[in-house]
Order: sequence, then C-alpha cells, then structure tokens
Amino acid sequence: MSSGGRHFEFRAGTAGGWRITANAQVSGAGLPPAPFLSVHEIPFAAPPVQAAWSMRGVRSHDRYVNRPEKERLAAIQPELGRAQATRAALIPIRKSDAWWAMAQDERRAIIEEKSRHITIGLQHLPAVARRLYHCRDLGQEFDFITWFEFAPMHADQFETLVANLRATQEWTFVDREVDIRLTLAGVSQS
Amino acid sequence: MSSGGRHFEFRAGTAGGWRITANAQVSGAGLPPAPFLSVHEIPFAAPPVQAAWSMRGVRSHDRYVNRPEKERLAAIQPELGRAQATRAALIPIRKSDAWWAMAQDERRAIIEEKSRHITIGLQHLPAVARRLYHCRDLGQEFDFITWFEFAPMHADQFETLVANLRATQEWTFVDREVDIRLTLAGVSQS
Repeated sequence: MSSGGRHFEFRAGTAGGWRITANAQVSGAGLPPAPFLSVHEIPFAAPPVQAAWSMRGVRSHDRYVNRPEKERLAAIQPELGRAQATRAALIPIRKSDAWWAMAQDERRAIIEEKSRHITIGLQHLPAVARRLYHCRDLGQEFDFITWFEFAPMHADQFETLVANLRATQEWTFVDREVDIRLTLAGVSQS
Repeated sequence: MSSGGRHFEFRAGTAGGWRITANAQVSGAGLPPAPFLSVHEIPFAAPPVQAAWSMRGVRSHDRYVNRPEKERLAAIQPELGRAQATRAALIPIRKSDAWWAMAQDERRAIIEEKSRHITIGLQHLPAVARRLYHCRDLGQEFDFITWFEFAPMHADQFETLVANLRATQEWTFVDREVDIRLTLAGVSQS
C-alpha cells in the first residue's frame, strides 16, 4: 500500500477544529446543517464514521498544469495552517457527464485557455492557500473538494476569487456545488 | 454514490473464469503464483476478500488522449468478451515518483509525442481489446492495470504490442511491472 498521507476525510458534526459559519447550496442538492467540521487523514477505504455528513478525497498529481504554471504555483503557494489564516472555505463540486466525456485537450482548453482557472488562482496567491482533493474515483457524491484558508483581512479577496471562478465557462459544467464557510474554533468571530 | 460499474477487483486463487498460464516478474517485485483469476465489479471500498493476491482499479476518464485520438479509438476499439478472444493478459505497472512529479504537458509529451503509446495501441486494434484501470489513488500497490483480450491467432500481434510499449521512453519510468497471461477457463490450451 502506498496511500500514506494522501487520503483525507472531512466530517461535519458536533465537534471539530473548525466552526461552520455558513452552508450555502450553490447548485444541485445541498448538505445538512452541522455546527463543526473536522479534517482527518485516513487510511484508504477506512470504514465510515458517524457524522452529520462526511466526504473523502485524495491528494493526487496535477491533471492540467503545464511546467511553467507548475513552477509559478510552487514558487508562491503557501502551506495550510498559517497562524493568521483563521478563515476557511470547503467547496465541493461535481461536474457534468458532458465534462467527463471530453478529451484531455478539450478540458484543458476550457479550464485555462478559456476560463483562466489557473491564472485566477495565481492572482490570489499567497493570500489564499488552496488545496485540491480528488473524489470522483473514490465513489463519492462530489468530483472535487477544494479547501481554502485565508486571514480575515483577505476575506474580500477570497470572495473575488470565488466569484471569478463561478463566472467562467468551466463553471457551466458544474452541476452541483456547496459552499461551506468556516472559522478556526477557539477564534472569536469578528 | 455514483460509483456504479466503475470499480473492479482482480482476484487470483483456486477458482475463476481465467486460468493463469504465466506469471512473469518484469521489473520490481513479482506476485505469488496462483492457478486461476476472477474479475469482479465491486462497490467502492468493499471489504477485502481472501485471495492469493488481489488488486483493484477504477475505470476513469481519459487522462491524455486528445479529441482526434479519442475519435479514432472510439471508432475501432472492440468491447471485452468477444467469443474468439480466449487469451488475456493482466499487466499491472507502477510508475516512479519522477513520473508523478512531472506536469501534464511533460507527461503527455513522453506518452505520445516521444513514445507513441496511443499510436502503438491503435496499430493493434481491433485485434487486441484493451481496458485501462486506474489504481494509484485507490491505495493500491500498482498505479495502473491494463487488461488485454485477443484470439490465439493474434498472440504474435499482442507480443509485438507489448514489446513496442516496453521499448518506449515512457517505460523508463515504470519501476514495477508484472505480466500475467491467461486462457479462458474451459478452453483447451493449444
């Protein structure tokens, strides 16, 4: 087994390191309300745990970035867990069958050449830390989970990032999206 | 859950629809001997089953083919289970960390522009039916499983296909490979 450190589970319930401050159904079915979220590194195929809801994802290799983009991202993207980054967002999405039926060059063209997804993300680094988890091949309800972390002072910048992504051609292929906002538990909401 | 029909398990043991006729360690660690192989569609994260060895994979979207290649493949590639295709090969491979650290454009360039992987495959269609399963994100020992089916009269053509792939630049990134050959159980070996 070579899954060490790549599989994660997000669990919503009555306890957790993050307080859920908003739970918005953006498209398709939403998720039940819950007060807290916890994030767990798990073994692949760990048995399910009781939770209001949970979702799993795997950190995997890059699927679209080219070498120059990969270098630019590596030079500027921050790690998770920065002390000042007390706000987070958990945004799971599912893409349509039409998306998945496309060839690699067609998906890449929509993601970057037409939608500037990678460029938009770069514009908001290092303020907004971002980590992508893949779920589609893990039998999950969503195809991707993106986890964002940022300081309260960068909340407006984060809103701009999300709004810009949702306005892209790529997002016309998103048929389910939920937007969960969080504050580090123990940090007063201001 | 949307995993219906995408997750499969290959189990080697004392019973199964395919008789194992050869089990060759090509690079890295091999697999224990066993007389038969069975192929099962399973729910994602199904509990493990007793077997001499087993491996799981998921049928997933195309990762490298462009639109013209996808069209050419779709026009010519046969389904599995043809009556005359009584021979099969199960070839699990793992690629090195160096492979997975590359960007998409670099991996694509090695796969097709330098190694002609897709072109080589097309040359041997429709004689050799091929199906790819992804394993890397499923906590498995291998990254990919390819399953091939062909008629005895096309056995030489299959050997040419495998030899051509192993001679590519892409294959220098393969750090583990096992080559399992099979005959449909109940069919006399000739």
